[in-house]
Amino acid sequence: MKRCMDMTVEELAEELKSLKKEYNRVQAMELRLDMSRGKPCKEQLDLSMGLMDVLDSGSDLTCDDGTDCRNYGQLTGIDEARVLLGDMMENNPNDIIIYGNSSLNVMYDTVSRAYTHGIMGNTPWCKLDKVRFLCPVPGYDRHFAITEYFGIEMIPVPMTPTGPRMDMVENLVSQDESIKGIWCVPKYSNPQGYSYSDETVRRFARLKPAARDFRIFWDNAYGMHHLYDDHQDYLIEILAECKRAGNPDLVYKFSSTSKITFPGSGIAALATSPNNMEDIRVQLRHQTIGHDKVNQLRHVRFFGDIHGMVEHMRKHADILRPKFEMVESILDEELGGLDIGTWTKPLGGYFMDFESLPGCAKAIVARCKKAGVILTPAGATWPYGKDPEDTSIRIAPTFPSMSDLENAAKLFALCVKLVSMEKILKEKQTAVSAT
Amino acid sequence: MKRCMDMTVEELAEELKSLKKEYNRVQAMELRLDMSRGKPCKEQLDLSMGLMDVLDSGSDLTCDDGTDCRNYGQLTGIDEARVLLGDMMENNPNDIIIYGNSSLNVMYDTVSRAYTHGIMGNTPWCKLDKVRFLCPVPGYDRHFAITEYFGIEMIPVPMTPTGPRMDMVENLVSQDESIKGIWCVPKYSNPQGYSYSDETVRRFARLKPAARDFRIFWDNAYGMHHLYDDHQDYLIEILAECKRAGNPDLVYKFSSTSKITFPGSGIAALATSPNNMEDIRVQLRHQTIGHDKVNQLRHVRFFGDIHGMVEHMRKHADILRPKFEMVESILDEELGGLDIGTWTKPLGGYFMDFESLPGCAKAIVARCKKAGVILTPAGATWPYGKDPEDTSIRIAPTFPSMSDLENAAKLFALCVKLVSMEKILKEKQTAVSAT
Repeated sequence: MKRCMDMTVEELAEELKSLKKEYNRVQAMELRLDMSRGKPCKEQLDLSMGLMDVLDSGSDLTCDDGTDCRNYGQLTGIDEARVLLGDMMENNPNDIIIYGNSSLNVMYDTVSRAYTHGIMGNTPWCKLDKVRFLCPVPGYDRHFAITEYFGIEMIPVPMTPTGPRMDMVENLVSQDESIKGIWCVPKYSNPQGYSYSDETVRRFARLKPAARDFRIFWDNAYGMHHLYDDHQDYLIEILAECKRAGNPDLVYKFSSTSKITFPGSGIAALATSPNNMEDIRVQLRHQTIGHDKVNQLRHVRFFGDIHGMVEHMRKHADILRPKFEMVESILDEELGGLDIGTWTKPLGGYFMDFESLPGCAKAIVARCKKAGVILTPAGATWPYGKDPEDTSIRIAPTFPSMSDLENAAKLFALCVKLVSMEKILKEKQTAVSAT
Repeated sequence: MKRCMDMTVEELAEELKSLKKEYNRVQAMELRLDMSRGKPCKEQLDLSMGLMDVLDSGSDLTCDDGTDCRNYGQLTGIDEARVLLGDMMENNPNDIIIYGNSSLNVMYDTVSRAYTHGIMGNTPWCKLDKVRFLCPVPGYDRHFAITEYFGIEMIPVPMTPTGPRMDMVENLVSQDESIKGIWCVPKYSNPQGYSYSDETVRRFARLKPAARDFRIFWDNAYGMHHLYDDHQDYLIEILAECKRAGNPDLVYKFSSTSKITFPGSGIAALATSPNNMEDIRVQLRHQTIGHDKVNQLRHVRFFGDIHGMVEHMRKHADILRPKFEMVESILDEELGGLDIGTWTKPLGGYFMDFESLPGCAKAIVARCKKAGVILTPAGATWPYGKDPEDTSIRIAPTFPSMSDLENAAKLFALCVKLVSMEKILKEKQTAVSAT
């Protein structure tokens, strides 16, 4: 295939004519597909229906330590759940607090607490003139939404296949006391599916922040979400590495079972150092009498142990792998060699990132929408929704059925070609008329 | 029985001798009873075990509107749950947000949001020099703990059997712009079991607060918790009354199923005006993708409708009524006519309030503790844990078994007598030596 840039004006015009025809044909199909969010599909949800059976009216809802899970108490979660999520998060159960159904809520809460009460005796952020966060880009829109909601200024830091640009992170963090945090999705990142390299994690653990209340917000949402059995990303465990580096209090680590069992009905957790934990506990005991222990027990009984969870995740992978591979092969086939975009091929997680030619992302998403396929809004992967080069598009292949996904991916490739070639054609025409 | 005050020094000394003997006897029993919190007992929890059966792996977890409860979405709760809790709270389902497992968490969150972002466009409380709350006393310690945690100054307002002293409330609220809220448990109040009279509710709805962001924090925790079928307190519905009075935005109303099904595994809700709702929604969509819809559905399917819930509450009442009545009859029998304390006889809720002679509450609680019965710490029912007269003791009769409760109530009465008579004896002796 010829690179689009190398095509003549005539070739481009000809190609666009047939692309438009094809677009009209697809539009007539009246697709109604939503690829905007990282939602599991029905078949994935069906995998966890056993959760509904593990407890019944004959069950003993008592924990190993004698706690009746039906009653009040156990502020930081039942021991069994802390063990299971400890294995899942690769942390000591004692360093874990089990929360409610949403790790996003835990992250919101963590920012909110720092804002209202400060971290470990430091000035509450609400009393500071300026609070800033580093935001690896492209990144997760809901992270950015939380910091924006609290009026925290966001500084984009470019992502690379091995993690954020660590030279920038180190410089900024060590020089600017107003920088209080960084959002990280360290494994199978949202949206690229990148995993931080060993060096990246080591450098994170060795940051020398100017602010004593700087924390890494380590959202390990996809720690268990491998697509392949034999080809998986491994991540150095950040809390342990921070401890080894003499920076034990540097990290808040978040995770949940949202995309393991049921989104919205899973259990979320935070892992952190004993000092941070003690700090959080003061808030926690004002905030609630405890989270849903019956649901904690339900999860523990359903999985049995971490091996049970790993086996469960293989079933998810069997459903998701063909979806990722199909999108990749359609993009390869339709766009390979044209040089009008790049896309990631992750080994896990929920997303791929597509990088278009500059100034094309919004137009591509709009074209898809007009033909009935909703993508995450272009720009969503950047703070304030503003992608300066207008290139990043998050692809979420998990929710649609295979046949819907095929239609959606083909339409997407078509729209990429349409928008890109129109842009190139226009540039070439402008160049011609200028000479 | 002779009033203790009317007993001679000799009579008191004699009586104390036998009381101490009795106390030593009880102490030797090595009781280990916890009456400190309003926890349901095992038999009450057993009433809701059917909750564990209503959903199984064969169930359709789809709502009436087609929402798959297992997946993300429905920020404010599923329609069916809003209808059920609407009936429970006597509010329009559209005015209700279903939250997670804890109404305390919703209250914390409501204060926290006002603190970080302000209410309906008003200055965030964190930017104000002084924020104050009115606290009807004695009241609920966890309410006071939230406001204290946010550095909000608490002003005690005396409770009466018809509600807080409304002349004080009206005066303070209309004159002081720094007063931003009042904590209310309007029905079967914690700890007295009082219900606000019609006049009280009407006057609440007609408050003319100096602060535009003053809100009534209406914690209707015990709306369904009647002890008697034929003798129940009714409460004018506050949102409707506020609307009629032209003050639609004056109230945040909280409730949950915590003491209806399982504490910690129920569903909580907030009811408020459309304006407040819109204000809250802005935060909510940054905070979470949604609460636990499977648990919402579980509750809806378990109760069917409000009549199912009412029938369920009758079973709770059957368990709790004898406990309340036993404590009352023991107190009547042991303390009646002695004039060393008063106690409430509620028609519902989870608590009774005991008012001792001035300066005796702490000592009574300490005496009980030494003999193995843990009560709510004296003072807990006042802001900052400081009961100026040291008179208020919260009695929580729900959790212990009947026989444990009998022992505990008898011990309590014994300790009241011991401490009160010691005090009176000392006063009499001092009076004698002074003459």
